[in-house]
Amino acid sequence: MSRTHILVTNCNTTLAMTDEITAGARVAASPGTTITGLTPSWGVESAEGWLDSYLSAAAVLDALRTYEGAPYDAVVMAGFGEHGREGARELVGVPVVDITEAAAHLACLLGRRYGVVTTLDRARGQIEDSLLTAGVGAHCAAVAGTGLGVLELGDPARVEEAFVAAARKVLAAGAEVLVLGCAGMTGLERAVSARLGVPVVDGVAAAVRLAESLVGLGLGTSRAGGYARPERKGRAWGRPPREAERVHPRVTGPVTHG
Amino acid sequence: MSRTHILVTNCNTTLAMTDEITAGARVAASPGTTITGLTPSWGVESAEGWLDSYLSAAAVLDALRTYEGAPYDAVVMAGFGEHGREGARELVGVPVVDITEAAAHLACLLGRRYGVVTTLDRARGQIEDSLLTAGVGAHCAAVAGTGLGVLELGDPARVEEAFVAAARKVLAAGAEVLVLGCAGMTGLERAVSARLGVPVVDGVAAAVRLAESLVGLGLGTSRAGGYARPERKGRAWGRPPREAERVHPRVTGPVTHG
Amino acid sequence: MSRTHILVTNCNTTLAMTDEITAGARVAASPGTTITGLTPSWGVESAEGWLDSYLSAAAVLDALRTYEGAPYDAVVMAGFGEHGREGARELVGVPVVDITEAAAHLACLLGRRYGVVTTLDRARGQIEDSLLTAGVGAHCAAVAGTGLGVLELGDPARVEEAFVAAARKVLAAGAEVLVLGCAGMTGLERAVSARLGVPVVDGVAAAVRLAESLVGLGLGTSRAGGYARPERKGRAWGRPPREAERVHPRVTGPVTHG
Amino acid sequence: MSRTHILVTNCNTTLAMTDEITAGARVAASPGTTITGLTPSWGVESAEGWLDSYLSAAAVLDALRTYEGAPYDAVVMAGFGEHGREGARELVGVPVVDITEAAAHLACLLGRRYGVVTTLDRARGQIEDSLLTAGVGAHCAAVAGTGLGVLELGDPARVEEAFVAAARKVLAAGAEVLVLGCAGMTGLERAVSARLGVPVVDGVAAAVRLAESLVGLGLGTSRAGGYARPERKGRAWGRPPREAERVHPRVTGPVTHG
Amino acid sequence: MSRTHILVTNCNTTLAMTDEITAGARVAASPGTTITGLTPSWGVESAEGWLDSYLSAAAVLDALRTYEGAPYDAVVMAGFGEHGREGARELVGVPVVDITEAAAHLACLLGRRYGVVTTLDRARGQIEDSLLTAGVGAHCAAVAGTGLGVLELGDPARVEEAFVAAARKVLAAGAEVLVLGCAGMTGLERAVSARLGVPVVDGVAAAVRLAESLVGLGLGTSRAGGYARPERKGRAWGRPPREAERVHPRVTGPVTHG
Amino acid sequence: MSRTHILVTNCNTTLAMTDEITAGARVAASPGTTITGLTPSWGVESAEGWLDSYLSAAAVLDALRTYEGAPYDAVVMAGFGEHGREGARELVGVPVVDITEAAAHLACLLGRRYGVVTTLDRARGQIEDSLLTAGVGAHCAAVAGTGLGVLELGDPARVEEAFVAAARKVLAAGAEVLVLGCAGMTGLERAVSARLGVPVVDGVAAAVRLAESLVGLGLGTSRAGGYARPERKGRAWGRPPREAERVHPRVTGPVTHG
Repeated sequence: MSRTHILVTNCNTTLAMTDEITAGARVAASPGTTITGLTPSWGVESAEGWLDSYLSAAAVLDALRTYEGAPYDAVVMAGFGEHGREGARELVGVPVVDITEAAAHLACLLGRRYGVVTTLDRARGQIEDSLLTAGVGAHCAAVAGTGLGVLELGDPARVEEAFVAAARKVLAAGAEVLVLGCAGMTGLERAVSARLGVPVVDGVAAAVRLAESLVGLGLGTSRAGGYARPERKGRAWGRPPREAERVHPRVTGPVTHG
Repeated sequence: MSRTHILVTNCNTTLAMTDEITAGARVAASPGTTITGLTPSWGVESAEGWLDSYLSAAAVLDALRTYEGAPYDAVVMAGFGEHGREGARELVGVPVVDITEAAAHLACLLGRRYGVVTTLDRARGQIEDSLLTAGVGAHCAAVAGTGLGVLELGDPARVEEAFVAAARKVLAAGAEVLVLGCAGMTGLERAVSARLGVPVVDGVAAAVRLAESLVGLGLGTSRAGGYARPERKGRAWGRPPREAERVHPRVTGPVTHG
Repeated sequence: MSRTHILVTNCNTTLAMTDEITAGARVAASPGTTITGLTPSWGVESAEGWLDSYLSAAAVLDALRTYEGAPYDAVVMAGFGEHGREGARELVGVPVVDITEAAAHLACLLGRRYGVVTTLDRARGQIEDSLLTAGVGAHCAAVAGTGLGVLELGDPARVEEAFVAAARKVLAAGAEVLVLGCAGMTGLERAVSARLGVPVVDGVAAAVRLAESLVGLGLGTSRAGGYARPERKGRAWGRPPREAERVHPRVTGPVTHG
Repeated sequence: MSRTHILVTNCNTTLAMTDEITAGARVAASPGTTITGLTPSWGVESAEGWLDSYLSAAAVLDALRTYEGAPYDAVVMAGFGEHGREGARELVGVPVVDITEAAAHLACLLGRRYGVVTTLDRARGQIEDSLLTAGVGAHCAAVAGTGLGVLELGDPARVEEAFVAAARKVLAAGAEVLVLGCAGMTGLERAVSARLGVPVVDGVAAAVRLAESLVGLGLGTSRAGGYARPERKGRAWGRPPREAERVHPRVTGPVTHG
Repeated sequence: MSRTHILVTNCNTTLAMTDEITAGARVAASPGTTITGLTPSWGVESAEGWLDSYLSAAAVLDALRTYEGAPYDAVVMAGFGEHGREGARELVGVPVVDITEAAAHLACLLGRRYGVVTTLDRARGQIEDSLLTAGVGAHCAAVAGTGLGVLELGDPARVEEAFVAAARKVLAAGAEVLVLGCAGMTGLERAVSARLGVPVVDGVAAAVRLAESLVGLGLGTSRAGGYARPERKGRAWGRPPREAERVHPRVTGPVTHG
Repeated sequence: MSRTHILVTNCNTTLAMTDEITAGARVAASPGTTITGLTPSWGVESAEGWLDSYLSAAAVLDALRTYEGAPYDAVVMAGFGEHGREGARELVGVPVVDITEAAAHLACLLGRRYGVVTTLDRARGQIEDSLLTAGVGAHCAAVAGTGLGVLELGDPARVEEAFVAAARKVLAAGAEVLVLGCAGMTGLERAVSARLGVPVVDGVAAAVRLAESLVGLGLGTSRAGGYARPERKGRAWGRPPREAERVHPRVTGPVTHG
């Protein structure tokens, strides 16, 4: 039986989060699928906002670029609403599935409208843009935040209550299916689904299965157009080593007009 | 190892087509997945147009309703652009995946825009509406017909040429990924992909993998809203037996106003 | 004076409903227009949900196909939010107007946004999709259900109260015009309009007038593209007679992969 | 038999155009409908462009405001793509139908996509905006100009050729139904329809029938929201009489900042 | 230093309003920019509704057409949600900026979604259409009215309270930035911004700066397509002088069909 | 006279490009505005594709974060179609204007539809997404590439020819205004505008003027919602110094399911 090896990239540098995500990925994976977690060596402790998201995107791409482990068949990017997926599609030679889009794809098969419940309210904009540019925004009824930060997800009972409260808002807005808008919440989807009586999709689980599907069908990223391979050129990933203390951006000017 | 049993419904009554489709489904399926083909006992020889599509939808729903075979874990509806998926979601207690939406979902993961190549041009409208109402129409660059009817798909070389010609149109319209807009074309996707250098998604294969994914993750159709179980009531699936020769719709009137 | 003969198809098999609908159609028709009601000989007692809608579509198309009464000039399809209109456009040689789209077309002429009040909440999705695919969804502010089933519409006072309550919701959502989202409610539009001070459009009435308009102007369905005449082929409308007790869908398999 | 009196407003001051339009309106009207043409006493000889359109809108509204003829039951505004319909809806106590939207409403009933053939290319933007704000833009495949000015429509053969050429463009863009995008072309729709084999909708004819429909059903403009009756206040329709030679807009300033 | 001269057109005939607007424009302008206010010699005391808007559009265009003051470099049209901007673009040889679109353009740079607070609720439709046709409607979360008429804006405290109340509604709908949807409210934006803690954009100020920007960059209206210069033809701006008391629109008919 | 200091960030590390961009910015700036160019100390030589764009975004944000020069009043981000603007909005206390959105904002004021001419075709997707998420995508008729890389822009005659060729494509698609879709092309807009007779907007120039406008009006980024200030947390901008040779992403696993 052929085996599929999926590399799951955490969007932040918190190893405990990678462990949580890879544990969830393993539970979701088909028999025989191997999961490897990849934690960026730099970037953000947790991604909460646009600045974090862009820093995270570069760090995750750098992690993929410098990865020297066993060959893999697909990449799952486990940052909900975080940037980077298109860059990874250019970079690696295997399919790339982002958990945001993945959850939406499966949710569309389960009901007419879905809603996303995420951590902080500030993430709503990123998630909406991510769904829109992935082509699956049309059936998103609402995105709601729980008010909890990514690193406050430790207390399961509190998280569940906050999730259920936010979920009721998106159901009232017309959602028939819920999406867990944060990686690393293994098990929460079952509890919420049981309480609210609607299916709850976890992005990591969805992405693992979609990645397996693409691999199983021999489908890869199109190189015709947007996701052509990166051009050859000079790139520096982070500040130059050794001189780090005194490296600054170069300032030209100021020069006044007129 | 748990086994998944997928019921694949042909949208027409042509058994050879069912065989073709189930053969394709088996090739696409994961190890251990069992495929059963279901051919409606009435309906259309081939579905080409709106009338056929609605007749097909009722016939397929009747086939699902009266199926007495082994229990199944998911339904794949193998009529590209044909109606019925929402009715099946109400009817059966397991996930339902239509090949039209399935192909689009996977295509969105492989490129920024996809295009559909189908049989007759008249099918374009149905396919566009099907993608739109499934929530995945936003990234469809174009739908083009080959001019070949469903039952003219026998000559592989001619089909491939016609497909490649139509595919070039949708690529020119911005597609980066192709979708085969017809069931029962096993193998064509590889030939077209090799010639044009872009990924080609077959709907049956995509749907089988998505169905497996939903089953594997324990996800089912939401009953909150649009896909609640059918109401209990009298339904007659086709004209009353025994009196068939003389059964007509009941005409009331004509009565003129004023 | 030339006379126009309109065939009004009920979407269900309940004759009392056909009578109600044709009575409403006659009140709405221009002087000299003749209305004939057509009740399918099979299908659903009442259409409430997607399964019902697809069964209804096939049954109504079969009724049109086998109709042997006086020639008619146009068809009005009297199932609000139900499927089938595009198939009827292919099938018959005269204009076809569906009451869902008809109500929306007239409503757009009376205010900037309209809202639909229908029976069960579960019908909302079908109505939204029907308006969207008819090209008149853009100005729909909201669709709201009364919670009453199609066959519970007998008690006028209760129906009126339920309607007014749901109507207030769609007005709050921005609607300036109301659409009655169910056939067979003759007279209700006047009562609701009087109480709420906004125009209320009944789909049957709207469709009869639009059908008369198309006939009067000599306009017919385009055969260029989506609504070409059906292909010649074998079609079976419902289970084969005589052998009805033992006719089952044909099951192929199960066969397991690998 | 009740009679319907429709006031048809020409958007320009050219009486021959009013005659043409009212002749077309009469041909399209139901038996018993009375048509009165209304020509603004000021405004534009022909409306070609945005400036003309806004001047025309004010002049037509003034004509409606100061009309002292027989009471009427509905207004048809016969300027294709011209402004003013919403103002007329506020002003008069009867339904108002604009020929742009009217043609689109009927066209949507005849095919999946329609296209508009108009006079000068410069009118495309106005027509697109008019369809969009009327809520019927979604199914417009394309708007194409013939290159002929409004007052160059005298030579029927030349007009027909120009129309057919432009029509082929919109059909190639996906239109299945054509709309004549200019008032005063009575008869052209039949010639073009015969040559191209697709239905052609004339806006004046469509609007007359829609106006009759609204009147027949007792439906009027909603006053809830956008089309409330105009506020009472001072309004001057054109430059003050008697002092016209030397009336100028009042200039305040110039004053320079800082 | 080059100087920019901006002509600011009031949409109504109330000179006090012009003064208010030009005062606001001067505060907003860059050093060296000269502001001239232009008050139409006819039209509406205040523009509140569609009828007023179309009358205003013609009057403002007439004012621009007959303006005989110092040459100017750009036009700012100071009617929030009022018509006319495209006509002015055709008419004058310099850039034209409407305050509705201007406020939206700047608001998009300050937050992900903006909302508009205007005077009467009836203006909502015009504002929505104006934003939509200007191409900046996508990020408008909501438009809300204060219930105050244009000429009731005299009492600053009452205006501020009404504004804050309506502003809370649009913030609840997702707006992160507010737009003052009425000209002539200089200073209000600072008070509201201070109380609600979000940026508030005044359309006049925004338009003045955008007009300066276009002038400074040497950019002018495109003549390719929609905004070509007006055709040469006869136009009459308002009722003919001298005979004003008895000038009526010309009535043709009534003539009854058949 | 108050002075405005604008920091213009190059998206790549090529100092000659920064010089080109700042020269263009100075030409475009109002008298008295001071321009300082900022070149990231790491990142990409030139940004061409998604990978480059995300790397660039992080590098530019790091440059802004570590900038120690004179205080500035606004940031202009000079990467056409590149990511990062929302992160900069969170990070800095002054307005941020991206050249992509800036060009589109001004272009919308000059014609009904605009088109973008960029360097490589592969940039089209990024530009389309950037315009869409900025809220100004609705009026974009087309984005076309010249086939020239960012660093091949040295030969003015060749660049001009390539630009004109691509420009003709977007004009044929309906654009009335052109946008130069690349930073660092000072002067090209005048040549192209002169040859094609349509306005051509340069993003750097547009952004400088819009930034001045926001500063002049005292408007800043909203903190209510999407662009709240970054959370306090650990962030590492590039690989840890000193140990750079051996720093790798941390790999967890592989572990196989089941």
